[in-house]
Amino acid sequence: MADFTLQDVKQVYDRIRRDIVVTPVLACHPASEIAKASSAASVALKLELMQIGGSFKIRGALSVLANFSDEQLRRGVTAVSAGNHAIAVSIAAKSRGVSAKVVMLKRSNPARVDACRSYGAEIVQADDVHEAFRLVDAIAEKEKRIFVHPYEGRGTALGTATLGYEFLQQAPDVDTVIVPIGGGGLAAGVATAVKMMKPGARVYGVEPFGADSMYRSFAKGSPQGIEKVDTIADSLGAPSAQPYSFALCRDAIDEIVRVSDDELRAAMRLLFRDAKLAVEPAGAAATAALCGPLKELLKDRHVGVIVCG
Amino acid sequence: MADFTLQDVKQVYDRIRRDIVVTPVLACHPASEIAKASSAASVALKLELMQIGGSFKIRGALSVLANFSDEQLRRGVTAVSAGNHAIAVSIAAKSRGVSAKVVMLKRSNPARVDACRSYGAEIVQADDVHEAFRLVDAIAEKEKRIFVHPYEGRGTALGTATLGYEFLQQAPDVDTVIVPIGGGGLAAGVATAVKMMKPGARVYGVEPFGADSMYRSFAKGSPQGIEKVDTIADSLGAPSAQPYSFALCRDAIDEIVRVSDDELRAAMRLLFRDAKLAVEPAGAAATAALCGPLKELLKDRHVGVIVCG
Repeated sequence: MADFTLQDVKQVYDRIRRDIVVTPVLACHPASEIAKASSAASVALKLELMQIGGSFKIRGALSVLANFSDEQLRRGVTAVSAGNHAIAVSIAAKSRGVSAKVVMLKRSNPARVDACRSYGAEIVQADDVHEAFRLVDAIAEKEKRIFVHPYEGRGTALGTATLGYEFLQQAPDVDTVIVPIGGGGLAAGVATAVKMMKPGARVYGVEPFGADSMYRSFAKGSPQGIEKVDTIADSLGAPSAQPYSFALCRDAIDEIVRVSDDELRAAMRLLFRDAKLAVEPAGAAATAALCGPLKELLKDRHVGVIVCG
Repeated sequence: MADFTLQDVKQVYDRIRRDIVVTPVLACHPASEIAKASSAASVALKLELMQIGGSFKIRGALSVLANFSDEQLRRGVTAVSAGNHAIAVSIAAKSRGVSAKVVMLKRSNPARVDACRSYGAEIVQADDVHEAFRLVDAIAEKEKRIFVHPYEGRGTALGTATLGYEFLQQAPDVDTVIVPIGGGGLAAGVATAVKMMKPGARVYGVEPFGADSMYRSFAKGSPQGIEKVDTIADSLGAPSAQPYSFALCRDAIDEIVRVSDDELRAAMRLLFRDAKLAVEPAGAAATAALCGPLKELLKDRHVGVIVCG
């Protein structure tokens, strides 16, 4: 059971709404490539990749910051991320008028580092993931900055829940939602909101075969890690499931399916053909499941697909 | 004065709606690249490039066919096109259950030829544009097929008017619309519908410098041709303006501006960064005008931008 209600989700949504993009929904034409490659009665794509900063991460970051007063935020925020989450925290901090110091890796995409700087964030570069976490802990402690986790915790889940809430408001006929799983923060919030709004709806989670920590966690009944990440969908490659988002996923997700790199590539082509979208592999994961492992299961369903950034 | 009313547009929209995609609208975030590159109070992108068949052309084709009874359509339809219009006519014919015979060029993009075939159309290939028009005339006469013009005439304009109507329904705050001009069929319908719904709104047309037949027609006061097309936005390269769409454009468009190939390329990059869209040069023309020649004129305006396919 989630430790928040739909009313809580609505309250967070009202607070963050003016700072996010209400991302559009594309109802696929029955003659579209995606509709033809699936067996669903209808397919609606939630184009969350058009979110400011390029991903849903802004929802979680703004939601976390909404828990703190201006006084509490006075010393700024800090975060660790290779990309999208760093951008999201930079934008969220700017919208609250506070400073952000973000730890990124020296091998982080320079365009993403520049994006963070363009929103006014200070960047600290680390040689590897271990150093990065050491640095962010030190910054949080020494500078009394608030640490914004990339995918775990109540604030983050409430933020990603606004995506599920917004989607079903826009596409009320949807009775089945497919959501990609990386760390699990996106899926935890989306699945919980969908089940709160439509208890009879089905929610499927999708992981790449080469990064299936939540699939393994479901099988074992507790959060599991994976030895290594091996998929083209690198941004879905979280090393382990975490307890809070695992618990929400376990309660609200009906089944987790896995997709291959080839299925991801095929889905990227479909999104390009139907919607002219240049999608990263991670963003195509839910579409890959729709046209791959879930195909036979979704006959006669009205399917909502999260196209994340 | 248009020879149709807003009521006529609504009637056509009701008739074609179930066969088209109600394309989504992206309200740009104030911190997005596009918003920052413009001076508008707000920017809403109409993502018509997600239309079935890849372009707005299906609206005109369905609207033209809606003027004919099943009996009249019994012998099928014919059209001439290098790409998008051929696909649109193929889809529209299929939705009415009649046959389509489409004349394309031998140098037409094979993917587009295949798309037409996938919708059941028969393809006739011509060596050049002159042979293509000769062939389509012969087919229309000999086989008594109905000829569907790519951009001229009342039926086509009523079809493209549904795009303007739909856009303002989705984004009622928009007070300024920017629309690309190729043959002029898109702009004629969109501009007319916008002015019918909001007489105080402004409508700007956009042409590439290297394909500015409507700009020249406005200057001369009558439909003009151009000697040659010289732009990367090849699908905006109509050889001449036509009387029906020229008259509608002249009445409903406040000003026509021109954009360079460099401005088109810059706009393509902005659409990729903000919306992950892989847009053809023609589809980026209105965005190019927003951030280029119209920049100073659009301060404090709520601008709607047609991103066509």
